[in-house]
Amino acid sequence: MEKIVVRQLFRNLDRYANQIVELNGWVRNNRAQKSFGFLMVNDGSFFETIQVVYEENLENFKEVQKFRVGSAVTVRGLVVPTPDAKQPFEIKAQEVILEGDCPEDYPIQPKRHTREFLREVAHLRPRTNLFAAVFRVRSLVAHAIHSYFQEQNFVYVHTPIITGSDAEGAGEMFQVTTLDFNNVPRTEEGAVDFKQDFFAKSTNLTVSGQLEAETFALALRDVYTFGPTFRAENSNTQRHAAEFWMIEPEIAFADLQDDMDLAEGMVKYIINYVLEHAPEEMAFFDQFVSKGVLERVKAVAASDFKRLPYTEAIEILLQADKKFENPVSWGIDLSTEHERYLTDEVFKAPVFVTDYPKDIKAFYMRLNDDQKTVAAMDLLVPGVGELIGGSQREERLEILEQRMDEIGVPKEELDWYLDLRRYGGVKHAGFGLGFERMIMYITGVENIRDVVPFPRTPKNAEF
Amino acid sequence: MEKIVVRQLFRNLDRYANQIVELNGWVRNNRAQKSFGFLMVNDGSFFETIQVVYEENLENFKEVQKFRVGSAVTVRGLVVPTPDAKQPFEIKAQEVILEGDCPEDYPIQPKRHTREFLREVAHLRPRTNLFAAVFRVRSLVAHAIHSYFQEQNFVYVHTPIITGSDAEGAGEMFQVTTLDFNNVPRTEEGAVDFKQDFFAKSTNLTVSGQLEAETFALALRDVYTFGPTFRAENSNTQRHAAEFWMIEPEIAFADLQDDMDLAEGMVKYIINYVLEHAPEEMAFFDQFVSKGVLERVKAVAASDFKRLPYTEAIEILLQADKKFENPVSWGIDLSTEHERYLTDEVFKAPVFVTDYPKDIKAFYMRLNDDQKTVAAMDLLVPGVGELIGGSQREERLEILEQRMDEIGVPKEELDWYLDLRRYGGVKHAGFGLGFERMIMYITGVENIRDVVPFPRTPKNAEF
Repeated sequence: MEKIVVRQLFRNLDRYANQIVELNGWVRNNRAQKSFGFLMVNDGSFFETIQVVYEENLENFKEVQKFRVGSAVTVRGLVVPTPDAKQPFEIKAQEVILEGDCPEDYPIQPKRHTREFLREVAHLRPRTNLFAAVFRVRSLVAHAIHSYFQEQNFVYVHTPIITGSDAEGAGEMFQVTTLDFNNVPRTEEGAVDFKQDFFAKSTNLTVSGQLEAETFALALRDVYTFGPTFRAENSNTQRHAAEFWMIEPEIAFADLQDDMDLAEGMVKYIINYVLEHAPEEMAFFDQFVSKGVLERVKAVAASDFKRLPYTEAIEILLQADKKFENPVSWGIDLSTEHERYLTDEVFKAPVFVTDYPKDIKAFYMRLNDDQKTVAAMDLLVPGVGELIGGSQREERLEILEQRMDEIGVPKEELDWYLDLRRYGGVKHAGFGLGFERMIMYITGVENIRDVVPFPRTPKNAEF
Repeated sequence: MEKIVVRQLFRNLDRYANQIVELNGWVRNNRAQKSFGFLMVNDGSFFETIQVVYEENLENFKEVQKFRVGSAVTVRGLVVPTPDAKQPFEIKAQEVILEGDCPEDYPIQPKRHTREFLREVAHLRPRTNLFAAVFRVRSLVAHAIHSYFQEQNFVYVHTPIITGSDAEGAGEMFQVTTLDFNNVPRTEEGAVDFKQDFFAKSTNLTVSGQLEAETFALALRDVYTFGPTFRAENSNTQRHAAEFWMIEPEIAFADLQDDMDLAEGMVKYIINYVLEHAPEEMAFFDQFVSKGVLERVKAVAASDFKRLPYTEAIEILLQADKKFENPVSWGIDLSTEHERYLTDEVFKAPVFVTDYPKDIKAFYMRLNDDQKTVAAMDLLVPGVGELIGGSQREERLEILEQRMDEIGVPKEELDWYLDLRRYGGVKHAGFGLGFERMIMYITGVENIRDVVPFPRTPKNAEF
């Protein structure tokens, strides 16, 4: 008798049909009749649940009838193909053993729970269909990303989480400290004496690994980061979390076109990988979470992404036969309604908007010859909006220093960053993908709290 | 003419031999003679440097003669096989273009630099042989780990970095806060009012994702974490960093034997993956960093790991024909000299020491029937000592609660953890691998500061 997991049965039924197998799992439902019953068992290895039929010939039949939802069991039995039923097989039990009991007050019952409730029992919600599917897809997307870059010989770089610099200025930061609030050390002048802090200076949680990744791209050519990043923004929206993961590739001897090629390839790779490895989960999302999500992501994987300069995008918006809430003029940052108009109505495909006005973009983006725009790109996708933001980096020392002076970025703190332009600097580019945004896009789940195992948001750091 | 990277030439010379190619890279050395010269060029895609021969027929011959170390160049030329030379080919230049200049004060010159010096220019050190090799191997080991688990259908879980609990008590923690040291809010009683902090409570950086990973194992069966962890310990040793990465698999319906099988398989998978994907880097470590490291890791990949109960280990040590500095008796924690004696002298192979006295292990480890030991394991490897620590987890609610009471672990804070024993709890197990320790083991590099891109240690959070 072979010990197996449920995934093996679904993926290789021929091998196990009419064999006796042993498996473990948790009871999702128990429909006990007078002389027989059905246990629906899920073992976590596979999205689908299997049906175990038990009959009164079992020694412990009366006990099995009372096995409660949430209990853990070991089942030994015969795999019986059921080609005409919804499930391709069932298990005819010869033995069902209780491994772990579950009381009646178990919060995860076979009924519809609200997502708000399930967030409160985040330690139990992976036991539901929705969250088992979300978190397996999350894992698959992570591996797809690693595989995409590693197959192309990229080097994965762990940029630091604790950082002594807040130079990128991408938002409010969390402070990291070992100082005691009850006994704050002071300098003679009365300032907080960070010399006595763990790192002998004030430190924060990173908001981006890009600048450090650039140092590696200028040595190893093609690199990427994949790690947690943080924003101490007091935003209680569906799309913001204080802790989230980012992917930031950086490529040397490369320009904005190469950057977009890389981003487009990545999005398509991720989608195809998930379609191949999680068809059951994707069917579930399509049916119960976001109707049409399957067609939507398939269409994206098959489409050529449009590349559209910002200036042309503005012209299209100005000529649109549509009234926008946010007025359109050259120089504005595009708002969601503008982005959605471009992707959903005009192009019906993902769109890279490129070459934004320099004043609405970061200091490190390469100034174009027009002196007004920078070699930036945002990838907008239908139904969601911005998925990726990237740019070619300013590799010319003088122009970069001038931009930093204009915007007030402290050059002394970033002297090491300027070194990359002093010592064999070359054109290079990169982008950032918010990992959770990609998961939300692929699954159709609309709240970031529902795609993170234990979300961190204002006033919430449970578990 | 094809644009290529150096890796393609080395891996597929036949395809490019006697072809004209274009490539980019950085000058590692320039040996200019009167009527010709040699540029040693590295493009980051491959460990080895290529030799570019240039002659006075080049239009800019006199300029090329002066190209300095560190400069970035584009080279167009003929790939000429050199079967009798050390390098299998060279490039006969038809054109060499300067892409990025490099001044004479460039810190990375073609000479031996101390590792201490290179730490100070951590943004430039990936441009050296040693660090290019270390960081590529680091990346490969990361991908090997993901591949090992994903191929076995494990779910990768991002456990939280910011945590509201310090329950595991694995060491001193960093505080994460948005409170202002200059204006600390107070409660009426005068205590620090963490209700006004970002998360409305005191929060820290995680020391381990294990407890959260257990919640996922009890839903999805086989899971793993791979993320940064933190210790605010003021240890300035070669083996300690304040920020490091950990891998923590957790498997349900599994015992300590399954756990050791998983760990042994992982270590072998990692070694074989690196041997296959980085033979040049491994040869370099073997020759210049740690003589014999190649044989050592190969032997480990080919060996059966010994499994030895702690009590037997103590007997072996007591009977050893050797004087230890730290006296041996049942109940002690093994020190490095004991571990090295077992691995290097007695077994000459990796050894799992199992079933340690409960008093020297964590509260969550499963109590054995002898009531004195717990189902723990440490993997000791020759030349290094402890690489992995793991255990079967205590799944019995009453015994776990009793242990928590004995040790003083607050049960209220970990009520969610106890839920895993209340609701369908089953035997499960897991382990932790310090990622940097694995890199040090495989590369032979002895200081953790030299295997982390930008290390964080006491008084040091540069870049």
